[in-house]
Amino acid sequence: MDKKELMTKILKKEIVKALGCTEVGLIGYTIALCKPENPYEIEKINLTLDKGTFKNAFSVGVPNTNGFGILPAVVGGLLGDAEKRLLIFDGIEYSKELEGYIKDRLKIDVVDGDIYCKVVIKTKNGETKSTVIKGSHLNTKEEDEELKNAFKSLGLSDFLEYIEDIPKEVEDIILETIETNKELAKSEYLKLGNDELSYIVEKTTSACYERMKGTNKPAMAIAGSGNMGIMATMPIIAYHEINKGKDIERLIKSLTLSALVTIYATYHSSYISSMCGCVNRGGLGALCGLCYYIHGNDTNKITEAVKSFTANLVGIICDGGKIGCALKLASGCFAVYSSLFAEVPPNNGIVGKTFEECVKNISRIGHAMKPVDDEIINILKNKK
Amino acid sequence: MDKKELMTKILKKEIVKALGCTEVGLIGYTIALCKPENPYEIEKINLTLDKGTFKNAFSVGVPNTNGFGILPAVVGGLLGDAEKRLLIFDGIEYSKELEGYIKDRLKIDVVDGDIYCKVVIKTKNGETKSTVIKGSHLNTKEEDEELKNAFKSLGLSDFLEYIEDIPKEVEDIILETIETNKELAKSEYLKLGNDELSYIVEKTTSACYERMKGTNKPAMAIAGSGNMGIMATMPIIAYHEINKGKDIERLIKSLTLSALVTIYATYHSSYISSMCGCVNRGGLGALCGLCYYIHGNDTNKITEAVKSFTANLVGIICDGGKIGCALKLASGCFAVYSSLFAEVPPNNGIVGKTFEECVKNISRIGHAMKPVDDEIINILKNKK
Repeated sequence: MDKKELMTKILKKEIVKALGCTEVGLIGYTIALCKPENPYEIEKINLTLDKGTFKNAFSVGVPNTNGFGILPAVVGGLLGDAEKRLLIFDGIEYSKELEGYIKDRLKIDVVDGDIYCKVVIKTKNGETKSTVIKGSHLNTKEEDEELKNAFKSLGLSDFLEYIEDIPKEVEDIILETIETNKELAKSEYLKLGNDELSYIVEKTTSACYERMKGTNKPAMAIAGSGNMGIMATMPIIAYHEINKGKDIERLIKSLTLSALVTIYATYHSSYISSMCGCVNRGGLGALCGLCYYIHGNDTNKITEAVKSFTANLVGIICDGGKIGCALKLASGCFAVYSSLFAEVPPNNGIVGKTFEECVKNISRIGHAMKPVDDEIINILKNKK
Repeated sequence: MDKKELMTKILKKEIVKALGCTEVGLIGYTIALCKPENPYEIEKINLTLDKGTFKNAFSVGVPNTNGFGILPAVVGGLLGDAEKRLLIFDGIEYSKELEGYIKDRLKIDVVDGDIYCKVVIKTKNGETKSTVIKGSHLNTKEEDEELKNAFKSLGLSDFLEYIEDIPKEVEDIILETIETNKELAKSEYLKLGNDELSYIVEKTTSACYERMKGTNKPAMAIAGSGNMGIMATMPIIAYHEINKGKDIERLIKSLTLSALVTIYATYHSSYISSMCGCVNRGGLGALCGLCYYIHGNDTNKITEAVKSFTANLVGIICDGGKIGCALKLASGCFAVYSSLFAEVPPNNGIVGKTFEECVKNISRIGHAMKPVDDEIINILKNKK
C-alpha cells in the first residue's frame, strides 16, 4: 500500500460520526450486540470497563435518555439498534421503568489497559451471552495494528503532500464533518468578547458543551473521540467563518491536515489517557491546520507553532467526559491561537527540534502520566 | 498565635524579592555561603540538587552572567555576596575566565525529594567546606513546619476576613510587589489584541519573559517562585490598570487574597512539582483575587470560579524555568479570565464542592504526577 492509500484508509477509519460521548456510545453498542429480545428477561449484567472508558462515561450526558453516566448508557443500549453502532442512542424511546429494573442487576468492574468493554448478560432461562470490544471503539484487528504502525512512521511532510491532492471520498467525509460539527455549535457556553479568538472559543466550546450535555445531535469523532474531533476542527471552521472565507478548498485541506496530525499524535500516544487528548492531540491538529489555513504550505512556520504549543499545555489531565471539557477546549483554543504569535528558543524544556520530536515528547509525558488515572478514579469513586 | 498573626507571619516569609529564577538564585546563594576567598583555590565543587531545582535551573537565564543554566549560577555565586541571599547575582562582575576554570571542576548530582541544594567545595590546600539548604528556598526550620501546618488548616473564609484589615507591614510588602512586578513587565512577548484579556496576557507574559531571559531586575516571588509571584499578581494589576482603577485599597486586598491562596495551595502541594505551580497555584490565587476585585467579598462567586478553574488546566506540567513559561502563564491568564464567565455543574470530574476541596483535589493530582518528573529529566538529559 502506498502512502496515499494508507492515509486515505486511516482517515476513513478514524473520522466517524458518533452520537453522544464515544464512551457511553461504546457501552451502549456493546450491550446492544448481546442483548436478549426482552430486556426484562435479564437476571444480571456484568460490565467490565478499562479505566479510561469508566472515567469518560462516569458523568457525561447520554443522548435521548435525559440521564448522565453509565446506567443510562446500558439501558439505552438495551433499547437501541446494534446496526447503528456508535449512534446507538439514535431514536430510542427511553424507559425509566427499565432503568429501575436494570439498576440493581448491573455490576461494574474496572480494569487496567487499553480500551476495553466486556458485557456478560445472564437471562432468567439460564442463557449467557457475552461481547467484548477492545483496542479501539470499533474492534481493532491485527491488520489495523499494521496500518497503525505504518501510519506512525509518516511525518509532517507526508501529510502536507497528501492534502495537496485529497481523494474525493475523503473530501466528502471532511465536508460532512464541517456540516455535522457546525450544527452542534449553536448554543453559547462561553462568550468572552468580539474578536477572532473569542469567536473561535465560543464556537468550539459550544459544540463541546452540547455534546457533553447529551444533546441529540451527532459529532464527527476523530481517533475515537468526539471532543477531539470538535477540538481538531471547530477552531479552523470558526476562523474560516469569521474571516468570511470563501476558499472552501483551503478549509478542506486545513481540516484534513488537522485530522492527519490528530490521528498521528493519538497513534503515538493512546486512544484514551490520563492526559487530555482533545487539547494535547486535537489541539495540535487544529494548530497545524490553522497555521496552514493562514500561512499555507510552510513547514517552518508549522514547526515553530508546534514548538510553542509543546511549551504550553502539555500535561493537562483528562478527568472524564463532562461539561467542564468545554473549558479545557477553550484553553486549547487559546493555546492554539497564541502559538501562532510567539516563538520559544530551541533549548526549552520538553520542546523538540522538529514536529515529530515534539509529538514524541508529548506522548512520552502522556505515558509517564499513567499513574494519575488511579488518583482520578479514586476521586471519582469517592464522589459516588 | 492567633489566625491573623499567623497569616501575617506567613505572608512576610513567603513574599520575597528575588533576582533571576529562584532556583539559580538558590544555587548561587548556597555556593556563596561556603565559597573560599579566592575562587581559583577551588579544586572541586560537588553540587547535589533535587530534581525540581535541577529542572528549573537547567535552561533559565542567570542575571548579570549573560548565560543560561547551572554553570553560570555556580560561577555567579562564587562572585556574589551571600548577604544578598536570593538576590545573589545583584551587582556581580561576571568572569568568563572563572567560568572556564570552574567548568571541569563542577560535578552535579540529582536526587529525589523536596527542595535540596548541597554544595561541597574542596580547595587546593585540602580544606572542605559544605552547605546544605533544604525544605524551602530559605532553609526551613521545625518552627516553620508548625506554621505551615497551622496555615494549611485555614480556609477561604479566614483569608477573606484577613484582607478586610491588612496590617501596615503586609500592605507595604504588597505595595512593593506591585512596583517590582510592574517594573518587570515592560517588554512585549505576546500581544493578541486590544481587549481586557489581551492586556492581562501581555503584561503577565512580559514580566515572565523578562525574568526567564535573566534580565537584571528582581521579581517578588511568592511561595518560592518568581513566576508564581508574577502569575498571582500581574493579572490583577493589569486588570486594575486597564480599568483605570483608582481604588488602590481594593487592589491591595485582592493581591493579598491572591498571595494567601497561592501559599495555601502550595503548602497543600509542594514548592516544586511535576505540575506547573505557577498556573495551578498562582493562577488559583490570581483567580480568587480578580474575582474579589470585580465582585467583592462574595464567597459563592469565588467558589464557583474556583470550580471552573479546577475543571480546566490542572495537570499542565512544569518542565523547568525557561522562556516558554511565559506561554504557560498566558494560558493561566486565559483560564483565570474565562473561569469568571462559565460555570460547571457539581458532578464534574475532580471538581470539588468547596474551595478547599478543589485545592485538595488539585494537590492530589500534583502528587500523583510525581513519576512524570523522571521522564522530563530524561528528556532534558538527552538534550545536553
